[in-house]
Amino acid sequence: MYEMHFAVPMAGGVLNTINTRLDAHNIATILNHSQAKFFFVDYEFVSKAKQALQLLNNHFAPKSFPLLILIQDTNFKPKSPTTMTLFDDHHHEYEQLIQKGDPNFVPIGIQDEWDPIALNYTSGTTSSPKGVVYTHRGTFLSTLSNILTWGMGTQPVLLWTLPMFHGNGWAFTWGVAARGGTNVCLRYTTARDIFRNISDHHVTHMCCAPVVFTIILEAKESERRPIKSQVQIMAAGSPPPATLLHQIESIGFHVTHCYGLTESTGAALACEWNHEWNKLPKEEQARLKSFQGIGSLTLEDVDVKDLETMKSVKRDGKIMGEIVLRGSGLMKGYLKDKESTSKAFSNGWFRTGDVAVVHPNGYIQIKDRSKDVIISGGENISSVEVESVLYRHPRVLEAAVVAMPHPRWGESPCAFVALKKNVSEEVMVVSEDEIIAYCRENLPHYMVPKMVKFVEELPKTSTGKVQKFELREIAKALVEEKSSENSDNNVETNYKNNNVLQAVSRL
Amino acid sequence: MYEMHFAVPMAGGVLNTINTRLDAHNIATILNHSQAKFFFVDYEFVSKAKQALQLLNNHFAPKSFPLLILIQDTNFKPKSPTTMTLFDDHHHEYEQLIQKGDPNFVPIGIQDEWDPIALNYTSGTTSSPKGVVYTHRGTFLSTLSNILTWGMGTQPVLLWTLPMFHGNGWAFTWGVAARGGTNVCLRYTTARDIFRNISDHHVTHMCCAPVVFTIILEAKESERRPIKSQVQIMAAGSPPPATLLHQIESIGFHVTHCYGLTESTGAALACEWNHEWNKLPKEEQARLKSFQGIGSLTLEDVDVKDLETMKSVKRDGKIMGEIVLRGSGLMKGYLKDKESTSKAFSNGWFRTGDVAVVHPNGYIQIKDRSKDVIISGGENISSVEVESVLYRHPRVLEAAVVAMPHPRWGESPCAFVALKKNVSEEVMVVSEDEIIAYCRENLPHYMVPKMVKFVEELPKTSTGKVQKFELREIAKALVEEKSSENSDNNVETNYKNNNVLQAVSRL
Repeated sequence: MYEMHFAVPMAGGVLNTINTRLDAHNIATILNHSQAKFFFVDYEFVSKAKQALQLLNNHFAPKSFPLLILIQDTNFKPKSPTTMTLFDDHHHEYEQLIQKGDPNFVPIGIQDEWDPIALNYTSGTTSSPKGVVYTHRGTFLSTLSNILTWGMGTQPVLLWTLPMFHGNGWAFTWGVAARGGTNVCLRYTTARDIFRNISDHHVTHMCCAPVVFTIILEAKESERRPIKSQVQIMAAGSPPPATLLHQIESIGFHVTHCYGLTESTGAALACEWNHEWNKLPKEEQARLKSFQGIGSLTLEDVDVKDLETMKSVKRDGKIMGEIVLRGSGLMKGYLKDKESTSKAFSNGWFRTGDVAVVHPNGYIQIKDRSKDVIISGGENISSVEVESVLYRHPRVLEAAVVAMPHPRWGESPCAFVALKKNVSEEVMVVSEDEIIAYCRENLPHYMVPKMVKFVEELPKTSTGKVQKFELREIAKALVEEKSSENSDNNVETNYKNNNVLQAVSRL
Repeated sequence: MYEMHFAVPMAGGVLNTINTRLDAHNIATILNHSQAKFFFVDYEFVSKAKQALQLLNNHFAPKSFPLLILIQDTNFKPKSPTTMTLFDDHHHEYEQLIQKGDPNFVPIGIQDEWDPIALNYTSGTTSSPKGVVYTHRGTFLSTLSNILTWGMGTQPVLLWTLPMFHGNGWAFTWGVAARGGTNVCLRYTTARDIFRNISDHHVTHMCCAPVVFTIILEAKESERRPIKSQVQIMAAGSPPPATLLHQIESIGFHVTHCYGLTESTGAALACEWNHEWNKLPKEEQARLKSFQGIGSLTLEDVDVKDLETMKSVKRDGKIMGEIVLRGSGLMKGYLKDKESTSKAFSNGWFRTGDVAVVHPNGYIQIKDRSKDVIISGGENISSVEVESVLYRHPRVLEAAVVAMPHPRWGESPCAFVALKKNVSEEVMVVSEDEIIAYCRENLPHYMVPKMVKFVEELPKTSTGKVQKFELREIAKALVEEKSSENSDNNVETNYKNNNVLQAVSRL
């Protein structure tokens, strides 16, 4: 995938990396929508790729079919050797293809810097994934921006704890090359492999969501190696909790906290550290570091606005508005989706969907998310996508999926479901486990709700819109209730339980 | 001048900083050519500015006259208070003007990123200065590039040992702001002030030509202060000699060596340091550091080409070609000078005029300068400009000015002069001192030749072009001869003397 980041643009093509955690149906949808001409697949994913191609053929009947190219990674031996023969007649072997290449090939020049370089599908607010188009201009600027934000010097050694399919590794795929660095690639993000690689390759940098902090901190003694030289972490995906921040920094890491979306080609905001803050107590430092911060150098502008008036909110750390972005580093738009593209921009500003305040020092802090996205272990989950599966269940009348706090993944999906009433009593009986099993059949596993709550009716506004804010409060309370089940029944717990019951009874 | 870097573009204007070492005639020429609308002058330079305006009025009769705005710097008291009243009827006071400003003024938006932001006059190969036009796009990219090249992190403290009128301080005027840094300004570049400011303001960065190394190293004991934390120096203008490099780094500085021209908006090349080289002997490290290096991240491309065939030279460290540059960070062109602009570019490549080799590792090293520019103490001196003054002397038949090595300034101008013969014997007698005095009357002092050699005739090619390469060899030998005059008459010296005599006799 790293080689593709250079080879595909040099060949005049557009790179579309695919999240390997998606299921075959998602992948078929993407292949169909992107009209991919070549499909590069690592042997580990051959069986999923085969399913996807079958779905593509059976359900979409595309005019042209992508040419399959299989990659035999030197460190990976396929579990089932039979999968290797499945495509004998239709595929190429990557290394063999490379051997046939022309060493004198001159890379295709860029005619227009606004031409696309990459396409990244994101789980947005609608059920079908949207194809975010990056331009050469945008990725160039974002690459510079990300290096600058991190203060990444020359000859870095970057450990790929962030998948390269996430917004092209926040543009560090290109960034490491720009800095004359070394890439250390990981097949599985395990504590043992992280520690081993840091030690063996003198890793200086790594990007990740805070869930990787947990993986590192949960390492067994036998898996650990001493961190001899400070490792720089760029963290994004969700704000790192203060305790995690403190713990990870105390064992030899240093965290730069950023904020971005697929649409912003890596970090749009960064919590640029003011050296003065080093004098503050550790807890206050962690609180400040959890802020999303200020705009990056290549972003034309960032603001928090009242979207009805398009006025900037007061810098008081209290009044909320939506984070909006402007600049060449942003996506060009969603592929073949004019409606979503025009919805994403208001008066030239890209709407992030994140609700935030601005502190008096200009630092932005997210308070809520107006878009229905759940961020679980750094992965975006579209609540609408999960809901659309729930709605397909024969006994579901209505469903709403919201984020609930999760100690490991940051957030996980919680489903609220109202069942149909005009069916016989017998058919009505459906358990939480059955709903979850149904979701597992129809969704990538990381998108499956971890909790399902049955309700009489979903809370709605006067105009009939589901009040997700209220559901999120309930989900949060339910989690707290659960976690306090094993603790003493003190006043605090009783109070919380009462609140939960009251909230649920209101439904 | 620092405030102007932001105020002028925000007001929709173009900033033209003027080298304060130029004489009134040069300044008048620039004011006339640029059609400046406002002329901001520090009180220290009021008398020179007055002369320039008089010349502008008398010799050029411009359609409009610039409005004079005088700046009373808080730390500078004018030597002669009378100069303050000279412009009573025609000038504004800077601080008073600021007071009248509208605090709600919204900066003028940039309509086209290729619009000009700055104009910098350079001593080029022709006698009149050329106005190098910078675009918003170019300075933006170069600002990022310069921060990246230097690895300048957030909150730097930059000491202005480089004048801001030099290519806008190699774009660090904007760069320090981009990094949330602090500017420490110097009125005079003395050793005492450099040490005092480094110590008082915890300076982290400074840019300079190698001549500033000498100033620092020559400091008296009483002027020195300990350098408690390493100070990063970005050096350009001329390659720092190995000894100087070693000495300056041994007292607490660290040097990044770059290469650029006014036309490249700061560093186009940098000798990016390979960490592996730290294992090499100090002398070898200094030799490698004196290389001009590799292209910066925002430069589209850099190459060393045979300009007749436009083919890249072999990377063997031996075959010479001209350094050529391509990219948005370069100037847009020379103001109102289509001829020079089109001469400056060949097939889309900007011709630096510097002759170089490429080493097998891709690092570029300058071997000679094909343009007739002498770099003295970081200032460009156009040999053609000096020659044109010499030619105006009534007794000069022909003149050629070349660079000769100078222990302090790197280079200084050396003039070769052939006198007219068809004048009476008596008039013919003219001394070196007379010629130098004539130059002092007609040129900024730093441009005046430090040595004048009388010759029968200048050495020329078959097509009549002066062989400056040969003259540079002679000038170099003359300097060496002079410096060895006090040493013993050993074989080596005799050999050199003979060579010089032979060379001179060939004239």
